[in-house]
Amino acid sequence: MRIPFEQMFERFRSVLLKHGFRADRAEMCARLFAETSRDGVYSHGLNRFPVFIDYIRKGYVRVDAEPVISERMGAIERWDGRSGPGNLNAHFSMSRAIELARQYGIGCVAIRNTNHWMRAGSYGWLAAEAGCVGICWTNTIPNMPPWGAKESKIGNNPIVFAVPRTDGSPIVLDVAMSQFSYGKMSIHAASGEPLPVPGGFDADGNPTRDASAILATRRSMPIGFWKGSGLSFMLDAIVTLLSGGNSSMDMGKLGAERDLSQVFIAVDAARLPDRDELGRKIADMIDDLHAAAPDENGGKARYPGEETMRVRERNLRDGIPVDESIWRAVLELDA
Amino acid sequence: MRIPFEQMFERFRSVLLKHGFRADRAEMCARLFAETSRDGVYSHGLNRFPVFIDYIRKGYVRVDAEPVISERMGAIERWDGRSGPGNLNAHFSMSRAIELARQYGIGCVAIRNTNHWMRAGSYGWLAAEAGCVGICWTNTIPNMPPWGAKESKIGNNPIVFAVPRTDGSPIVLDVAMSQFSYGKMSIHAASGEPLPVPGGFDADGNPTRDASAILATRRSMPIGFWKGSGLSFMLDAIVTLLSGGNSSMDMGKLGAERDLSQVFIAVDAARLPDRDELGRKIADMIDDLHAAAPDENGGKARYPGEETMRVRERNLRDGIPVDESIWRAVLELDA
Repeated sequence: MRIPFEQMFERFRSVLLKHGFRADRAEMCARLFAETSRDGVYSHGLNRFPVFIDYIRKGYVRVDAEPVISERMGAIERWDGRSGPGNLNAHFSMSRAIELARQYGIGCVAIRNTNHWMRAGSYGWLAAEAGCVGICWTNTIPNMPPWGAKESKIGNNPIVFAVPRTDGSPIVLDVAMSQFSYGKMSIHAASGEPLPVPGGFDADGNPTRDASAILATRRSMPIGFWKGSGLSFMLDAIVTLLSGGNSSMDMGKLGAERDLSQVFIAVDAARLPDRDELGRKIADMIDDLHAAAPDENGGKARYPGEETMRVRERNLRDGIPVDESIWRAVLELDA
Repeated sequence: MRIPFEQMFERFRSVLLKHGFRADRAEMCARLFAETSRDGVYSHGLNRFPVFIDYIRKGYVRVDAEPVISERMGAIERWDGRSGPGNLNAHFSMSRAIELARQYGIGCVAIRNTNHWMRAGSYGWLAAEAGCVGICWTNTIPNMPPWGAKESKIGNNPIVFAVPRTDGSPIVLDVAMSQFSYGKMSIHAASGEPLPVPGGFDADGNPTRDASAILATRRSMPIGFWKGSGLSFMLDAIVTLLSGGNSSMDMGKLGAERDLSQVFIAVDAARLPDRDELGRKIADMIDDLHAAAPDENGGKARYPGEETMRVRERNLRDGIPVDESIWRAVLELDA
């Protein structure tokens, strides 16, 4: 079943209005959710929408809360997200970092007391479409053991890198520090299909491709083993320090993934004097990547975000594929 | 065989003076090399020193070249490294980023036409010891195939994250986008000991722990498979764009790892109003990490840089362990 983008967007907007969102905020929040499904990140678009509404009902997400500034320090600012909707707070924060970048060349916004930002990549696309290099990351509830341990103490802390292009769609990488998300592992557990590479540890502490075994132990695998474990800890330490907000450890104590901490950095690439020449060089780098001899499986090297554009075009043309039961649940939210 | 830190430093300094370094630059360059071995990163300290001297002789590294500014854009600046010594240029660049951070809250320096910075972590320690959060990365010559391909098109592009502490040694992570360096794989190939996890691909395109097989194919493994491949490409694209310098692709055409591009970001954490409270929170995060239940192998979760402090203390006390043949080669350089 496929739903046209506009129809999905309108339905989200309507549900959000019913839940007390101001009109402009309902529109932006609905657009961010619908664009996430449009771009193929179904787990954080439609499929996440009912959970988002549930978090509103639980009082974790305050629909009317807008971020307020707590410290101005030149090109870096600290904001309090006041438990507002995570995607609205994140969109605001990257937009503000872009404004600071226009003024100072580089801008940084650290926000505390915000909520899950849904698709991480959204804020990279935002920066790149504004002609900026964008880097942002979030912490999460502890959902992964640090290397050497079996107890979840660190988050999978997604990070985004985005590069604007002068002659093509942006390059955007959106990557968590776990090899697979729990959502991805649930899909494999349901189908019984092994993960393509080990994604965590089984009950005996052995690395495994069996998603069910990992869901049972809750011991997911950091990317690059000890390296991703270290990266996760650093991202959490930096975001906690700069925002003055909750660390993953703090969220573990809260017992819910709420009131988390994020950092948004933008660099204004539009003001680089050799911007056009560099745009051509980035295009050459992509051509060079595409020219790489394929591996034995006939693979093809792609730049981050390349597949997104393909999915976006198809979903805009043919409609966005939906899980019917989830779509019906959203229709009921609008009843 | 162990050599006292001061003796190693003096010997490096003497060799550099003989190779035309100005006194103050010989001292700084020698200190950076000696501190690298002191901290246990032997591959980029003493063991790399003869290669560094060889690069000077080849004309890749110009001993007297100092960076010159090419663009000022507020809190971000672009510098030309003029093919100077990589560690001096990198030390200068992070120092300048710290100055910009004192002025603007956050500072960024992008440098082109520089050389291998030796130990990446050095510039993270520099930032953290100045009370700053530090982030820096470099591109490298293509030394890894992108995911899906078998031809080296991307670099292993090390990145550093550093966090200052108010009550202890800094937290510093220094991590390349390949699972293992070629140096590490060479050690395993010589001893025949398998790598702890797959580090690349054999001649049939299968992932392998056999370091000799990977040295033969030159197909190393990105951290997190497709994720590290994407990260590597993004780091190269951003550093190329911001510096206006060579990409990994360009260095591949040059045929040597020279005139590379780097980015240094510093955030002045000293001016955070809740700095002391946050210092205690970082300490709590470390305690929480240490408290993680060990895995079946009796592992222990450690924070990045923790092991460095242990090695540093031992090497300062007992002397720095050296490969005698390399130490003799350095003595000959000083003859």
